Amino acid sequence: MERVAIIGASMTQFGERDAWIRDLLAAAGTEALADADIDASDLDHLYVSNMASGEFEGQTGVMNALAHDLGAVPAYTQRVDQTSASGGAGIYAAWQSIASGASEMTMLVGGEKMTHRSTAEATDVIASLTHPVEYKHGLTLPSFAGLVARRYLETHDAPRESLADIAVKNHRNGLDNPHAQFRKAVDRETVLSSPIVADPLRLYDFCPITDGSAALVFAPESVAEEVADEYVTVAGIGGATDTHVVHEREDPTTMRGVAESSRQAYEMADMDPTDVDFAELHDMFTILEVLQLEDLGFFEKGEGWRAASDGITHRDGELPVNTSGGLKSKGHPLGASGVAQVFELYRQLLGEAGDRQVAGDVGLACNVGGFGNCVTTTILEGPR
Amino acid sequence: MERVAIIGASMTQFGERDAWIRDLLAAAGTEALADADIDASDLDHLYVSNMASGEFEGQTGVMNALAHDLGAVPAYTQRVDQTSASGGAGIYAAWQSIASGASEMTMLVGGEKMTHRSTAEATDVIASLTHPVEYKHGLTLPSFAGLVARRYLETHDAPRESLADIAVKNHRNGLDNPHAQFRKAVDRETVLSSPIVADPLRLYDFCPITDGSAALVFAPESVAEEVADEYVTVAGIGGATDTHVVHEREDPTTMRGVAESSRQAYEMADMDPTDVDFAELHDMFTILEVLQLEDLGFFEKGEGWRAASDGITHRDGELPVNTSGGLKSKGHPLGASGVAQVFELYRQLLGEAGDRQVAGDVGLACNVGGFGNCVTTTILEGPR
Repeated sequence: MERVAIIGASMTQFGERDAWIRDLLAAAGTEALADADIDASDLDHLYVSNMASGEFEGQTGVMNALAHDLGAVPAYTQRVDQTSASGGAGIYAAWQSIASGASEMTMLVGGEKMTHRSTAEATDVIASLTHPVEYKHGLTLPSFAGLVARRYLETHDAPRESLADIAVKNHRNGLDNPHAQFRKAVDRETVLSSPIVADPLRLYDFCPITDGSAALVFAPESVAEEVADEYVTVAGIGGATDTHVVHEREDPTTMRGVAESSRQAYEMADMDPTDVDFAELHDMFTILEVLQLEDLGFFEKGEGWRAASDGITHRDGELPVNTSGGLKSKGHPLGASGVAQVFELYRQLLGEAGDRQVAGDVGLACNVGGFGNCVTTTILEGPR
Repeated sequence: MERVAIIGASMTQFGERDAWIRDLLAAAGTEALADADIDASDLDHLYVSNMASGEFEGQTGVMNALAHDLGAVPAYTQRVDQTSASGGAGIYAAWQSIASGASEMTMLVGGEKMTHRSTAEATDVIASLTHPVEYKHGLTLPSFAGLVARRYLETHDAPRESLADIAVKNHRNGLDNPHAQFRKAVDRETVLSSPIVADPLRLYDFCPITDGSAALVFAPESVAEEVADEYVTVAGIGGATDTHVVHEREDPTTMRGVAESSRQAYEMADMDPTDVDFAELHDMFTILEVLQLEDLGFFEKGEGWRAASDGITHRDGELPVNTSGGLKSKGHPLGASGVAQVFELYRQLLGEAGDRQVAGDVGLACNVGGFGNCVTTTILEGPR
């Protein structure tokens, strides 16, 4: 089967934006078309990754509005929802559209508009993805994160400071990302003295509520060769679920969706974890970066906490993780986050990441929906 | 490329159901797995077609809940939204998952739970798919239908009674469909004397608000040959948008999304309209059945209104349309409708449609999102 290429990408400023979801999607879409140097009329398919424009804004049908706003009609459109992994699911959908032969040019635009709602309201919309029984007992995603962090730290005798070091690293990286919501370095002490949200996790262990959008343009490699000077290819991709009810998991510190989706992606790419040069992981909570490092096969179980503290996942380390600043500092506009992860890999692989540039020709992105309810892993290779 | 087969199907009772979206999805999913004689653990991918479980019920993440309820974890899941054509878009997504090689066994479950909300509330949720400017001026989908019906009848000098004859035909068909919401024959006079909703259209020109679900199981034909006694194949499929703002259309009585999506489907199938033996069309409003008959190429422009009145689209006519009863009598649970269309084609092609059985080995389904904002067309062939 012919490989799928990415020939253009964009992301908008993440943060509090005075713009509605329609505007955010159109902005990222317009920029990605320009980056790929194609017209909207070249698109066969147009996918929108978005969890909840209806709940946040009372506006649905945003994929059809986007086709209108970009001038892409009659391109086929669809909205892809996989909760906080909607972006990764959109990448999988766009990949399938090209790999199946249904489309020869697909754009994916991910976005979410959230900050016009209070943090409590936004958390409530997000919490609607959990099992109703869990939700009734106050088990929102942050509280799961607290429970799992405590379990991990105790089981593996890991220091609390190791989680703080992830926040410090990702904030440091975000300082060099012009699109990041927070461009502010923090030190370990600031993290450890910030207000408790879900013990043992504190404010700086959590990503913020964010508005933003990002986009990617996909084509078969034969088309990419014709229309693009440089491009990257999707070497491997996969997706998998874990139990919807978290307490049913044998070990809540193991993310089965991460392990299974990456197994599929490595197999398709004919690679193993040692082939990966850098990664963008779903650090919605600091503890999630640790669990992904392990379940993606980069570290043995119980050893992932050492990565940030030992400098391994720093920009000058062996395996730079979240050079973009991650969800932690860049922000987490649900439907955009998975798309923005791959935007970062794309820029890194093309050598266009500015002050954040690291070396390598293989990047991996892991996008987590809910509390690991469904996960996609994407491996990119380039430039070509 | 290997053909994609459908090896199992189900639909639940449409109507007012004392069940939540989760229950409806699980019921259709369980039945389709049994019909295909496979286990949930055989599924690689699981798609859910649903427009608005968050808006209707405050519950999101229903695709992950379904994987849990069926025991399908770690199958990959995704929710597909294309407003009222979410079912058709789900079929396209499931087709792509198989055709791309990403999955060797995909189940699509479509469903919506709506009747616990008032008709005004439900119409309001649906209206959120229109352009905000149209919505502010009261242009909901029913009012568009009234405007377009008037334009069509005047332009083509067609009698008002011709639309009533579509309602009469589809209600007659629904009488023989045990899953239909309304199993009640109506006559022309009843339709023409029912309350005006959007002049010239009356109550019986509109489909109802409905709860329900339906499911389909897809596999590559090579797998279908191994595991299924009989199956049908997707001969062709396509999808396309029209302008989001209806008044921007050159001719509002032409549905560009229908024409373009069916062009793609005919091309893939290497067929033309004369090859189609029966069809399930999106008769959310009676006038839409007329427009689709024309834009799918079954009738010349301005001639489609004759179809029901002349008996051509009756069960004993040349081209039976909506043998299921259509959305009109069967009901229209948004995310389920496109899936249920193909359920009907599947049963017809396998000769399992009971009193509704018609002859033929090629069936076509057309699923319309919004007021033609995005449309999918699917052509099935069988049995094999």
